[in-house]
Amino acid sequence: MVKQKLVSESEVVMTELVLPNDTNPLNNLMGGRLMHWMDIVAAIAAQKHSNRIVVTAAADSISFQHPIALGNVVTLKAQVTRSFNSSMEVFIEVWAEDIPANKKVKTHRAFFTFVAVDQNGRPIEVPSVKPSNPEEEELYAGALRRRQLRLVLAKRMSPNDAVELKSIFNFDEPDKTAKKDK
Amino acid sequence: MVKQKLVSESEVVMTELVLPNDTNPLNNLMGGRLMHWMDIVAAIAAQKHSNRIVVTAAADSISFQHPIALGNVVTLKAQVTRSFNSSMEVFIEVWAEDIPANKKVKTHRAFFTFVAVDQNGRPIEVPSVKPSNPEEEELYAGALRRRQLRLVLAKRMSPNDAVELKSIFNFDEPDKTAKKDK
Amino acid sequence: MVKQKLVSESEVVMTELVLPNDTNPLNNLMGGRLMHWMDIVAAIAAQKHSNRIVVTAAADSISFQHPIALGNVVTLKAQVTRSFNSSMEVFIEVWAEDIPANKKVKTHRAFFTFVAVDQNGRPIEVPSVKPSNPEEEELYAGALRRRQLRLVLAKRMSPNDAVELKSIFNFDEPDKTAKKDK
Amino acid sequence: MVKQKLVSESEVVMTELVLPNDTNPLNNLMGGRLMHWMDIVAAIAAQKHSNRIVVTAAADSISFQHPIALGNVVTLKAQVTRSFNSSMEVFIEVWAEDIPANKKVKTHRAFFTFVAVDQNGRPIEVPSVKPSNPEEEELYAGALRRRQLRLVLAKRMSPNDAVELKSIFNFDEPDKTAKKDK
Amino acid sequence: MVKQKLVSESEVVMTELVLPNDTNPLNNLMGGRLMHWMDIVAAIAAQKHSNRIVVTAAADSISFQHPIALGNVVTLKAQVTRSFNSSMEVFIEVWAEDIPANKKVKTHRAFFTFVAVDQNGRPIEVPSVKPSNPEEEELYAGALRRRQLRLVLAKRMSPNDAVELKSIFNFDEPDKTAKKDK
Amino acid sequence: MVKQKLVSESEVVMTELVLPNDTNPLNNLMGGRLMHWMDIVAAIAAQKHSNRIVVTAAADSISFQHPIALGNVVTLKAQVTRSFNSSMEVFIEVWAEDIPANKKVKTHRAFFTFVAVDQNGRPIEVPSVKPSNPEEEELYAGALRRRQLRLVLAKRMSPNDAVELKSIFNFDEPDKTAKKDK
Repeated sequence: MVKQKLVSESEVVMTELVLPNDTNPLNNLMGGRLMHWMDIVAAIAAQKHSNRIVVTAAADSISFQHPIALGNVVTLKAQVTRSFNSSMEVFIEVWAEDIPANKKVKTHRAFFTFVAVDQNGRPIEVPSVKPSNPEEEELYAGALRRRQLRLVLAKRMSPNDAVELKSIFNFDEPDKTAKKDK
Repeated sequence: MVKQKLVSESEVVMTELVLPNDTNPLNNLMGGRLMHWMDIVAAIAAQKHSNRIVVTAAADSISFQHPIALGNVVTLKAQVTRSFNSSMEVFIEVWAEDIPANKKVKTHRAFFTFVAVDQNGRPIEVPSVKPSNPEEEELYAGALRRRQLRLVLAKRMSPNDAVELKSIFNFDEPDKTAKKDK
Repeated sequence: MVKQKLVSESEVVMTELVLPNDTNPLNNLMGGRLMHWMDIVAAIAAQKHSNRIVVTAAADSISFQHPIALGNVVTLKAQVTRSFNSSMEVFIEVWAEDIPANKKVKTHRAFFTFVAVDQNGRPIEVPSVKPSNPEEEELYAGALRRRQLRLVLAKRMSPNDAVELKSIFNFDEPDKTAKKDK
Repeated sequence: MVKQKLVSESEVVMTELVLPNDTNPLNNLMGGRLMHWMDIVAAIAAQKHSNRIVVTAAADSISFQHPIALGNVVTLKAQVTRSFNSSMEVFIEVWAEDIPANKKVKTHRAFFTFVAVDQNGRPIEVPSVKPSNPEEEELYAGALRRRQLRLVLAKRMSPNDAVELKSIFNFDEPDKTAKKDK
Repeated sequence: MVKQKLVSESEVVMTELVLPNDTNPLNNLMGGRLMHWMDIVAAIAAQKHSNRIVVTAAADSISFQHPIALGNVVTLKAQVTRSFNSSMEVFIEVWAEDIPANKKVKTHRAFFTFVAVDQNGRPIEVPSVKPSNPEEEELYAGALRRRQLRLVLAKRMSPNDAVELKSIFNFDEPDKTAKKDK
Repeated sequence: MVKQKLVSESEVVMTELVLPNDTNPLNNLMGGRLMHWMDIVAAIAAQKHSNRIVVTAAADSISFQHPIALGNVVTLKAQVTRSFNSSMEVFIEVWAEDIPANKKVKTHRAFFTFVAVDQNGRPIEVPSVKPSNPEEEELYAGALRRRQLRLVLAKRMSPNDAVELKSIFNFDEPDKTAKKDK
């Protein structure tokens, strides 16, 4: 097995057209259909990183703030940010484009986690990720914090063990925080 | 408009059969398809509570730990736990059933948030929720905490204002934690 | 094998949203799509009663009198009314709901018959049904009559052997009939 | 409006391939999918006879005795047998073909009823049907009897008014029946 | 194996209804959906001629000049025109019908090529085709020319070996052409 | 309107997973499904070049030589090569990837033509294309030849007027060809 792979080796781009059956009564894309597409593009990225069958392990919180209209073209880009033994975090970005109006908007960011498995469904180790630019490094660093949040939310880690996570929530007194940041 | 509604008034049950096109190479349900179903059942619950068109506003973190096999029957139950002006939190429970083997397992719990809108897509106020048993009350109380987590994660609230949220993460003083871990 | 099961043990509720591709040029649900949903919900009820693979054996006459509009929520409830060796009659009720208008109408009643089979597709005996309230008892009693009608219509029983059936059609002696018509 | 049309003017042939998502765990076509196809082919026949939008009014009892396997080619043929003001009875025949095995079997016969409507969904008169061979004449004659059965089953006609229907059920005096059976 | 079959033995008719998800923003059938239907009907025709599994080998140029509207009924007719060892050319004709307007138009003609294969995917010989009327004979004769064009376009034959093809392109001496154009 | 656009401005990448319902009995992707995907990705490229609604005008001959298996990831890349008033030629490349086996193969090349239309479906002029590297220039130059072939095949141009086309078919005098073949 390759020991380490670049982020770019797992990059996948998917394009979808919003069709009538994908929309709600306001003629906007239903959130569930978008999550379905996110899962597919992210699974392919995780497959490319691991060259294995992969199964969805977690989808992080997603906020839906930009309606995407019927007839829009949706572009989804996915890449593996970091791996932990058999699991991989995948970062997904989504753009919606009203081509006749020449408008393209970035509408969503999301993180999904996948586990690589063998033919019997048992977890199997994957290559580590080598970030190669500042953006990839930031995503790589943040992956540990997001992993702790996932484990705490799934009640599989005590909040006090989630060392990196504390820095996001920093529920400290102002002075203590100041100290920590030094 | 009705001012207050019972949790039971929004309850929806949906049943789906896992078909070949819903599955991954291990013949298990793809996570994205399940999220698609969750979004539909939850949207119907939010519609029933508000008697309005609703749009997905957020999907909380979901952890996928139980594979669901081809041919299984999936039951999804959704109910509104609490409302905040125009938004509603919906609690979704999922069971997978291998009927010939007579096995039914609770596989997922998830929280989605919907916003009620008028015909022009503008947010509109919805009834409040009246919990009527201990389980509904616990979900009602927790809704505030989950809302703060959503806002903090979406960077729309400072962690220090997330008063209720602190109780989940209870980043206590070192000595108390130390005791707990023993 | 369990010898007898309650009607409630086979009850299944399914909820579907009427999407554009399900509708005719008047924007109403196509009858065939509804029959497709009926077959799925009824098959799951028959599976739950028998804990077996089941195959559709018959669909009784269905009358479509209430159009169901695009965007409506359709609820289907199915339960096994009675079994005959390897076959099970399933009763299906359908409601259509225009949630923003707060209108819910019972639109259809139907009876489907399923046969439980083993892995080679051979019929296999199923538990009997224990009705436990007057409505279930009435459905149980009527099942015999409907079975005879099915067999007569499929030319697998002579009308004269369809003893229970006669009571529906009560083709009385000429003089009695004449009186009724007056 | 044309006053009368031939049966052949409404004939429609539809061909479908049985795909994985259409099948049950025995890899046979699900009954509900077949009814969905029957409804579409029959609706097109009724449209061709009436040159109108049509809506499904009734599906007569269907008996499913021949499993149709994954990969089979299903041929459905539909034709209007007779009209009654705004309603049309459509006769549907179904064949399943395992082409590599060179086997084609007639698997189903069914009758559906459609009503022609105007743009506002109001029933509108359709041409009468002119049968032009013995088979068409027999279907034409039987249509009246089946219509009575539909009305009796839907509780919209008293069995005693169903004059033609009596001839199918011929609940005669024992001796007459006895003769017929010899 | 049968040595020779009639064109009529492979004839297949398929009927499709144009649904919302099949259409572009002008509410007309998307070209890709039509090609999908063409491939299915043609594959069935090739199966019927060969009684074998078949795989698509080529689709000839298709020109889309007649928009087909939402709600139209599309009829596709396919028949094998000629075979070459393991390959079969299939001729497909398409009609679109606006039934309420009583208009039926022939919209497309296309040629697809299929190869018959055994269970391991290896090409296998098929019966020859016996044309039995002038139209079938013309299609039979033209099949050779179209085959040469396919091979030249796929760069698997030199234009100079494409003897029959030259007759279509008849790049004659200037004067002859000039005469023809007058 | 922009007068001229780069090829890269219209580039679109689409990724699809081969699911059970997309495959034939050999578990390979059906040709028609692939053409359906080609049409969608190419239509999006043509939309991006023209910022208009576009309709499929022609699909050039496609040769299917590489089977694509169930579970493979299919990548389609499309770009506009050249425009002619209101029509645009789009070049599509297709790769199939068996990710667990780490094999990616280029399986198809195709050319589709689209016409840009206004809201009433009338053709409308589009920007010209500016090729900016040798590959784009070769595709630009070849577009004229392919256009002539399309017009000749659709019988809308006399072969003798297809000046550029002659160079492909170069039906030269016997002796010259003979030399070339040596």
